[in-house]
Amino acid sequence: MEYIRIKELLDQPKTGETVTVKGWVKTRRGSKQVNFIALNDGSTIHNLQIVAETEKFGEEVIKKITTGACLSVTGEVVESKGSGQAIEILGEKIAVLGESDPEKFPLQPKKHSLEFLREKAHLRVRTTTFGAIYRIRHAMIFAVHKFFNDRGFFNVHTPILTSSDAEGAGEMFRVTTLDPKNPPLTEDGKVDWREDFFEKQANLTVSGQLEGELSALALGNIYTFGPTFRAENSNTTRHLAEFWMIEPEMAFHDLKDNAELAEDFLKYLVNYALENCEDDLNFLAKREEDENKNKPANERPALSLLERLKMVRDNDFAFCTYTEAIDILKNSKPNKKKKFNYPVDEWGVDMQSEHEKYLVEKHFKKPVIVTDYPKDIKAFYMRVNDDNKTVAAMDILFPGIGEIVGGSQREERMDVLTSRMKEFNIEEEHMQWYLDTRRFGSCVHSGFGLGFERMMLFVTGMTNIRDVIPFPRTPGNCEF
Amino acid sequence: MEYIRIKELLDQPKTGETVTVKGWVKTRRGSKQVNFIALNDGSTIHNLQIVAETEKFGEEVIKKITTGACLSVTGEVVESKGSGQAIEILGEKIAVLGESDPEKFPLQPKKHSLEFLREKAHLRVRTTTFGAIYRIRHAMIFAVHKFFNDRGFFNVHTPILTSSDAEGAGEMFRVTTLDPKNPPLTEDGKVDWREDFFEKQANLTVSGQLEGELSALALGNIYTFGPTFRAENSNTTRHLAEFWMIEPEMAFHDLKDNAELAEDFLKYLVNYALENCEDDLNFLAKREEDENKNKPANERPALSLLERLKMVRDNDFAFCTYTEAIDILKNSKPNKKKKFNYPVDEWGVDMQSEHEKYLVEKHFKKPVIVTDYPKDIKAFYMRVNDDNKTVAAMDILFPGIGEIVGGSQREERMDVLTSRMKEFNIEEEHMQWYLDTRRFGSCVHSGFGLGFERMMLFVTGMTNIRDVIPFPRTPGNCEF
Repeated sequence: MEYIRIKELLDQPKTGETVTVKGWVKTRRGSKQVNFIALNDGSTIHNLQIVAETEKFGEEVIKKITTGACLSVTGEVVESKGSGQAIEILGEKIAVLGESDPEKFPLQPKKHSLEFLREKAHLRVRTTTFGAIYRIRHAMIFAVHKFFNDRGFFNVHTPILTSSDAEGAGEMFRVTTLDPKNPPLTEDGKVDWREDFFEKQANLTVSGQLEGELSALALGNIYTFGPTFRAENSNTTRHLAEFWMIEPEMAFHDLKDNAELAEDFLKYLVNYALENCEDDLNFLAKREEDENKNKPANERPALSLLERLKMVRDNDFAFCTYTEAIDILKNSKPNKKKKFNYPVDEWGVDMQSEHEKYLVEKHFKKPVIVTDYPKDIKAFYMRVNDDNKTVAAMDILFPGIGEIVGGSQREERMDVLTSRMKEFNIEEEHMQWYLDTRRFGSCVHSGFGLGFERMMLFVTGMTNIRDVIPFPRTPGNCEF
Repeated sequence: MEYIRIKELLDQPKTGETVTVKGWVKTRRGSKQVNFIALNDGSTIHNLQIVAETEKFGEEVIKKITTGACLSVTGEVVESKGSGQAIEILGEKIAVLGESDPEKFPLQPKKHSLEFLREKAHLRVRTTTFGAIYRIRHAMIFAVHKFFNDRGFFNVHTPILTSSDAEGAGEMFRVTTLDPKNPPLTEDGKVDWREDFFEKQANLTVSGQLEGELSALALGNIYTFGPTFRAENSNTTRHLAEFWMIEPEMAFHDLKDNAELAEDFLKYLVNYALENCEDDLNFLAKREEDENKNKPANERPALSLLERLKMVRDNDFAFCTYTEAIDILKNSKPNKKKKFNYPVDEWGVDMQSEHEKYLVEKHFKKPVIVTDYPKDIKAFYMRVNDDNKTVAAMDILFPGIGEIVGGSQREERMDVLTSRMKEFNIEEEHMQWYLDTRRFGSCVHSGFGLGFERMMLFVTGMTNIRDVIPFPRTPGNCEF
């Protein structure tokens, strides 16, 4: 395994030394005599230029150096005479480890559409764009763990398979090993779930929050980071059937503490990307700039990708209550001129994307934390405020994304919680384990959820959520 | 949120200052006049002692300070006169945030059996033992990410929902939204999966390896860390239906590089625990010691928990081929005396737990990396050796655990891979995406899988895998 990764070589160029590098050919160009091979090994967005004389290796070998082929190259590191790179390798030995028939390899050295690449999700990771996205995705994953670890939070693996469906966050997938055509039936003709693997009906989790609360009321500060699922038939650029979510839950935190933590967390992630993913971000920023040239002015974002990231990092988020937000919207130009698809006329309505967009992009011009929503449009576990009309909920709205974080202070009072459950028709009987947290040593606590792919959209500037997860699952799509 | 976490206070005792702490009551003892409250907030295994005079707070308040109740306590930090702690708090203000009826709270201040606590998995996190286990679990999660991040590996979220079942690692769970009783049928009377959410049959992943390979052959070095599933009806102390797995995959690594990385990784994790989880490990070591007193001598481990951890950290792992291992076993005393349940008589048999145990605990007396297994007992994707009888596989065997890591160099040669797939009756048609990695720029590559809960068993010394994951899923068990 005596080879050096290209990132390491570019970071500390060992000019004059002989090294071996291994990677995949991006392009080969040049003349009949001299070939310039752009080699990439995934460690960085930058290609390493290999100079290979045809005479030295023979035409047979050179012919095999096509886009997508895998090479091992040994040669001297020299300063590059060409522009665009500081160093290059003078090829002395080249082994073609794996060929790539240019007639068949789907990724040609040209720009492919994102739609085309989605069909080739098993290969798109080799393109410059997706290499950049997945390296950033890793950096964001690591930043999540580092942020919480540094603050004394414990990561809890909440269950993926669950018999609880009380969170009510959305439609669930059923998980079963019963005969799909002729399931066992009970005497009264219903499917007999007692015969299934778990001896009851099991589903894929929509949220780890409830189990996270159990952990927080023992360990203090915890976070989950795992896959969550929605069996919703929505084919949009913002929804996936399988996505990753981060859900911190903190004992002794009220809504204000919760909002402060969420703001710190989002700023930390953005700053981590700016500090650790500069090359990949610069590429994606340039890519977005190029894309925008073809768009009408009103569809272009007001700020560039890097400006948006710095705007989030460097500004205090705005705060407003739901009630204030509704007032702002009611009195807004688009509402008065009937430009909203959903006119804002009364307190109590749920905000639509167009409203969130207006608040963030037109009114506040920075991220907004909206708090204290009407209790009728929020979940049963959110703490009822003293007005008995609103709950201690918070949504964080981001430019270009809309809701990126949803959270709340949790209802810690047993009597209020059980009466809320009644309103939502949630059977207490199935939730005794959850109620035990209120029964024994209850306390003020709060938490929030960040959809990881929503954050990835914001950080990369990509606009379709299928492009920021390696293998997107959507209705009708479960390939690879 | 003006309070200090107990770990922070114990690490840097601010004697003479007044602080507020919040946490749950472990015990209250003392006299009619003075109460000693052991308070724990989950940040550390250590309780903080609160001294509370009955007269100051009134009997009504003191009565509510029972095991499991949640308190906020403000008071001066003073040096403790009692033994067992350096400091204590002289209670000045005490608020009972959440009561805990001692008649009903299931966790009494006494030793509960692990079996009993498994039934109370939603509360067991509040016990000393499980608090320690989950803090260690977090430390191990973070160590996994840190190890790979420091080495330039990228974390890849491979899909949980998959239509591929070629890995063949075990029985799969079906994921569906079809009507469970009357699914739509095709004209020839089969379940019409085209009507299901993904328009084909979907399952829960048993391994992210194949998708990991796609990523490694673009990004170089990657790892997965996610939940995996087995729908196997095995009620043992070593199996779960839902467990977490770490699967690194590295381009340009052969079997030897793979084994070196795995050894470094395991040592890193163990060392991280020793350096970062001292208090929790000491508690679990003491716990194991106490448990062992009740066991017959031949069931006690030869080394203590901390000795076992240091043994792994400080020794080179042994290496032997499968062929050598079979020779050792054939000639071993238990085999000659017919003490093995499965006698070892010929080359080609799969090794059983008793054989692995003998190799690790009796013969080598340290972890062993066994390589080059017969190709007929290993998966289709493992690289066939030149002898055409064995594959470049490796299993790492640990004392007390058995197989903790399984890995291999992958078959990178298209023709060999497809002929192996034929032997295993795997249809090429469904695996074109996987074969594309060999078709376009193939190269030597390797990887391995570490079952995270197996590692947790080793690090904590626990003996039932249901005790090292917060919410264990096994046949008939999907509570909470």
